[in-house]
This record gives sequence, structure tokens and C-alpha cells, in this order.
Amino acid sequence: MTTITEASLASQTTTETLVDELLNRFARLTETGHGPGVTRLAYTRLEREAHEVFTEFMTDLGLTVWTDQAGNTIAELAGRRPGPAIGTGSHLDSVPNAGAYDGIAGVIAAMVAAWQLAEQETFDHPLRFVAFAAEEGARFGQACTGSRLAAGLTESADLDHLHDAAGTSMADAFREVGLDPEAADEARWSADDWAGFVELHIEQGSVLTDTNTQIGVVDTISGSTRLHVEFRGRASHTGGTPMHLRADALAAAAELITAGETLATDPRHRGTRITVGTIEVEPGSMTTIPGLCRLDVDIRDTDDRRQRETALELIGRAERLAAERGVDSDVQVVADASPAILPLSIQRQLTSAAHEVGCSYRVMPSGASHDTQMISHVCPVGMLFVPSQNHGISHAPEELTHTTDIVRGIDVLIAGLRRLDSAI
Amino acid sequence: MTTITEASLASQTTTETLVDELLNRFARLTETGHGPGVTRLAYTRLEREAHEVFTEFMTDLGLTVWTDQAGNTIAELAGRRPGPAIGTGSHLDSVPNAGAYDGIAGVIAAMVAAWQLAEQETFDHPLRFVAFAAEEGARFGQACTGSRLAAGLTESADLDHLHDAAGTSMADAFREVGLDPEAADEARWSADDWAGFVELHIEQGSVLTDTNTQIGVVDTISGSTRLHVEFRGRASHTGGTPMHLRADALAAAAELITAGETLATDPRHRGTRITVGTIEVEPGSMTTIPGLCRLDVDIRDTDDRRQRETALELIGRAERLAAERGVDSDVQVVADASPAILPLSIQRQLTSAAHEVGCSYRVMPSGASHDTQMISHVCPVGMLFVPSQNHGISHAPEELTHTTDIVRGIDVLIAGLRRLDSAI
Repeated sequence: MTTITEASLASQTTTETLVDELLNRFARLTETGHGPGVTRLAYTRLEREAHEVFTEFMTDLGLTVWTDQAGNTIAELAGRRPGPAIGTGSHLDSVPNAGAYDGIAGVIAAMVAAWQLAEQETFDHPLRFVAFAAEEGARFGQACTGSRLAAGLTESADLDHLHDAAGTSMADAFREVGLDPEAADEARWSADDWAGFVELHIEQGSVLTDTNTQIGVVDTISGSTRLHVEFRGRASHTGGTPMHLRADALAAAAELITAGETLATDPRHRGTRITVGTIEVEPGSMTTIPGLCRLDVDIRDTDDRRQRETALELIGRAERLAAERGVDSDVQVVADASPAILPLSIQRQLTSAAHEVGCSYRVMPSGASHDTQMISHVCPVGMLFVPSQNHGISHAPEELTHTTDIVRGIDVLIAGLRRLDSAI
Repeated sequence: MTTITEASLASQTTTETLVDELLNRFARLTETGHGPGVTRLAYTRLEREAHEVFTEFMTDLGLTVWTDQAGNTIAELAGRRPGPAIGTGSHLDSVPNAGAYDGIAGVIAAMVAAWQLAEQETFDHPLRFVAFAAEEGARFGQACTGSRLAAGLTESADLDHLHDAAGTSMADAFREVGLDPEAADEARWSADDWAGFVELHIEQGSVLTDTNTQIGVVDTISGSTRLHVEFRGRASHTGGTPMHLRADALAAAAELITAGETLATDPRHRGTRITVGTIEVEPGSMTTIPGLCRLDVDIRDTDDRRQRETALELIGRAERLAAERGVDSDVQVVADASPAILPLSIQRQLTSAAHEVGCSYRVMPSGASHDTQMISHVCPVGMLFVPSQNHGISHAPEELTHTTDIVRGIDVLIAGLRRLDSAI
């Protein structure tokens, strides 16, 4: 059987065809039972298989490929002179029942860029193409674990303290897929070794399609503070318990959900987004008042200070409404990442690259977190967005980006990398 | 091994000891994995085992015992003359992670009454001691299935249309425990065959303990209308989707839960109780806006008309708030039982019986539904409450009724049955 790389090198494969082949190849690596979308969670066998596809492709192109103890896979194309590298890439894991583009589009962009550049030319700087591990926080609560380890924002010792819903620690999940959690700190990137990093990603919003724009150049990446909230009331009979004698854990949660929505839509909070994405009650019977309710709250903001103030306001609100209802509350901050302002120097190279390729573009913030936010702690970084269709739906099977838009994004990415190579 | 009956007949067993032995015997018949309480769901092998305990005990006392095709078990003690019977009993199934008294106390009262009366005396009327099947609606949404089949309120053909969370139809659940759903209509009771029925039950509220009263004589049983609500919004990324572009199914549900609570605490609605006991979201990821939310709403009332008006008001509210949010809503009425006003003639016999035994008592409504509500469609019925401790907590492991209170209730029950035997 010939590999995708051999086939693509042997025949007259177009970039469009290669992008589609790679999208299909990755989309097939999915767990069943979560719905029609892609499910390839952090630190699972399936995520590792996706990294093996990346490794095989890059090895076939003649690049030097290694996987570090955080599970990140890096492929290097030597430069004309030694020294710090310029990098590009994204992640290969997904949320449950996801789309086929979030993260994947940026890794495919790196693969296609390597495919074009390995044959054509040599850069001054080494080029590194990166597939990060475990960007999604869906499994363990913490997002961007692979890039956080690379940036030194998460350390080996932290891996024992993060658990998935089944109670598996992240350290054990590492071991189950053949990674050594004790050695995860070795994955840390040195600032001396990296000159810059650019990530291509789907927008996951509708600004580009609403304004009929082909490329987004990101100036700010939202931060995210995540809360795990537990309300403990009294489980009791729905018929026998009058309204005024209740301590209903779900009614408390409902009040908090509505309070979060109201807070995020307040005019003071333009740029804040508050979401409750998970909720569960116990005992979960139609005729029993919920005695326990657990929920996760995701607070995103482009403004550092407002993000933390909003989180504190919501925590205070949870405590007050619980006290009023005679319900106990427990709020844990499970993750907290600051917004990142991306350097103007890289933004300028990317807008120039878009202009050079002949695309319409706009400078815009990113609502979602990205690996690049973590890598900004190592070296100057930039981000390119390609348009999301279907009203920007993401983290759902309806997520869609047209192949032509990905190909255009790759053209801008390569032009941008070339500009950085000259400028840095 | 001697049976509980043999042991109790052979030795100087007191009523207290027998009640405790039977409570322990039934409490041990529980499924694991739902928490520390009792889990013995409708139409499961464990429920049938509890009925077998009842059958064995009654057979040992010399009564004629049969189980009908609804799964109800009936033990008859012949009367001095043939004709319609006087009945007493309750149910043996539970909600998940329940207490050990709801239903069970009334079946134990019937067992102890049979144990006392089989040796001592003969009534004019035949006495029938009944363990109803499937009183709890927790598994299939519909409460009181055994007594509904006895009263002709549910028919064999309906059993295909009720399903549990795993998708098992009630008809298939019948087959799995050896009952014939096609023959379930044969369980129907004839009005000619029943002169009256009295159920003893725990209060499942705190009126008796708050007022330091020993016995409740029920005048009205609340009705219950149950809704299954589905909101369908758009699953999307929590970071990429601004607040104003969301269609968040859980935010819609939170608004409905709060609206239900507000409605039920409105002064116009004294006696209304609205509860959401179950909720689930899809995809259920911290970083995805819920695209789907399912919840069950239980609306209870002592007033027939207000119960239905409240249900309609809440359905209208669900539709309006969904429309305002760009979310689709689907509301199904999964169960609907009217409140029952119990005949004054039986109430009077029961208050006289309490007086005769020397108990304090009060006439009071029942917030919970009971099998007796269904049996009121067959013959005159009455209900006795014994006090619930722990603030009346029920449908939870903390459910507690003191053995002395059950024994006192049994004394009133037997006195009441004797009065009915003379009066009817």
C-alpha cells in the first residue's frame, strides 16, 4: 500500500486533493457512540494514531520527526543556517462529537506547507511543523496541555492532579498511551531555539463569512477561567415537600446559569462569554428533588482583568444564592489562562502576506483559546483564521470550512513564513 | 432455614420485632451502584423477589395468594360470608437510591395485620392484602402502573408506548420478569368484588412531626401532570460564539426551571408544587454550548383545574422562551393523574379508629400520588399517614419512620378495617 505522501509525490496531486485526503484520513480516526461527529479525545490511542499519520507523512517527505514526552510531534526541515526555528502547526485531538476542522486544519496546513517547501526551496531558518497534543480541555478540564508543557505553564507534577470524568489521572492517561509523565518536563521549549510561531486555525465564529472576508489575522486571543460548581441541597419527594421547605440543588444551578448569561450580555461585558456546557443531577429521578447538582462554567474574555473580575462576581453570586436557598455550594477554579495580545510585528508580516496573495483580510480577536496563546510565552507568535461556514458552528458535527478557504489560508501561511524568515 | 413467618409464629415475636425484620428483609433487596439507598425499580427481578417474600409470608399464614398479570400480588383471608372484599396494602418498588419505607411500610402493615388477624378472628368480609407493582414512575415516567391496570386506567395496549431511559418498553420489561403484557387487562378489578380499600403510607412530609401528631387521615391526594421537555438549540464553541449569536438549549432550560419555581411559589398557587428532577445536555462538553437539553417536569396539585392550568401555563412559557431564544421546543405530557377527594364516610371510620386506639390525628392532604388514588375509581378508599422523620425527607436514603409509629399505624389500620367491616 502506498502512503498518502508517496501517492501525492508520485502523481499530479493538487493541494485541494491533498487537503481533502488528509481531512478524510483524520476524520476516520474517531471513537463511536458519541454521535455522528469526530471524537478523538486527549491522550487516547486514537489521538496517538493521528500523530502517527502526521509522523509517517513527514518522514516520507524526508523531515526529521520526533515525539516529545508531552505527546507533541515535531517535524523539522533544516534551514540554510543553524539557529532558532520558525514553527507552524496546531492540534489533532477533538471534543466529543466534534467537527473535522478544529485544530486539524492547522496541522494539515503544516503538512501541505512541508510538502510544498521540502521539494522547492530552503529557508534560512529551520522550519518546524508541529502537531500539539491535548489542546481540547473536554476530557481533563485543562486546555492546551501539550503546548502548556512546551511553554512550561504546566509541569510534570501537575499531571497527577488532573482527572477525567472516569477518574483517570492525566498521568495515568499518559502511561496508557506510552508517554512518560515523569519526563513530560523534557518537552519544554527553549526561547533560544524558537524565532517565531504561526498557527492557522478555523475561525469558529461567523465574522469572516458575515463580512465576506477571506482571512483573519488575530490580534488578541481570549483567556478562559473555568469553574467546577457543586450545589448540595436535600433530595426529597416532589409531592410531599412543599416549595418553601425545599433545598433544590438544580433550582440553584438554574439561577446561576441565568445569572451568568445576564452578566455576559451586560453592556459592561462586551467581549465576555459565559457558558455552562455540562450539568448533572443526583439522584436524577422525575419524582425526587435533586439533592446534588454539578456543573462546569467557562468564562472567556479578551480582557485579562475583566475575566478575573467576572469569575469572582459569578463565584460570589453562586455562594449568595446557595446561602439564600439553604443549599451548600463548592466552587473550584479548574483552569485559568490569561488572554494573549499577539505582537504587532508578526501581525504586520501576516497582513502583508495576505495582501501579497491577493486575499481580503481583517485583523480580529479570537474568542477561542489556542496553543499559540501558550507558545506566546516562548517566542513571538501569530495566528491566521480561515472562514467557518454554518454560522461559525464549531465543536459540533456541523463545523465546516471549505477546502478552497483552507488552500488560500495555506498560501497566506507560506507567504507569511517566508516573510518571517527574511525579517527575523 | 425457617421463614420469617414460622419464626414469628413459633416464638414470642412482638409486632415491633416483626416490623423491623420485614423492613430489613426488603431493604436488602437492592440494586448496587445507585448510592447508599434502596434501588428496586418497577418491573425488575428485584421487585419480583420482594413480591415473593410477600407471597411466602402470606402463604405460610394460610392465606390464598395470587399474582396477577400486572404483577400485583394479592393474599386473601376468607370472610364469614362471601361477597366483596375489604383491602389494604401498598407497593414494594422504589425510586433509585430511595429510602426503606415509601410503600414498604404499607405492605408491611398489611403483612402484620394478616399475621394478627389470621390467628385471632374472622371478619364478615373477605380481607385482601395487596402488594401493588410499579407504583413509582421513576423508571417509565408513569406512576402507579399496577394499580392503574387494576383500575382500568392503563390498558395492555398502553404498555408498548412507555419506555425506560435504556429504551426498554414496559411490555418488554413485563416479559423479562415473566409477566404477560398481553394479559395485563385480566388484572382489572371489578367494583362488585371490592367493598373498600385503605392504604397506610409514610407521610413524606413534615406536617405530622411539626405538629407532633401521630396519625394523618388523608382527605385529598394530589394529582400530577408530568412533562418531558426537549430544547434543541445549536451546539457551538463556547469561545468562538458571541452571546447574541447563541441558541443555548441549557440556558433555555434554566429559564424554564426558574419560571416553574416562581409559578409554584406564587400566592395563587398555594398547593402547587413544580419540580425538575432530571436534566441532561448534549454534547456535554465544557467548551461546547449545549445543543440539546432534555428535562422532566413534575407538576403536583390538590386542585384538579389549577393543576391543568399550571401545566398549560408552563408549556406556553416553554414555547415562548424557546422562540425568543431561537431554540426549538418539544413538550410531551407523559403522565396526567387528577387529584382524588377521598370519601368522607371512610375518613370518618379512620378518624374514629384513631380515636379508639388513643392516637392524636389530623385530617390532611397528601402531596404525593398513591395507588389508592387509582383504586378510588373502583371502590371507596381511605388513607392513613404515619410520621416521616428528618424533615419529611423521602425518595432519599435519609427517609425514616420510627418503628413505634408504624406499629401505632397498624393498630389504627386494623381498628379501621374492623369498623369498615361492620359499617359497609
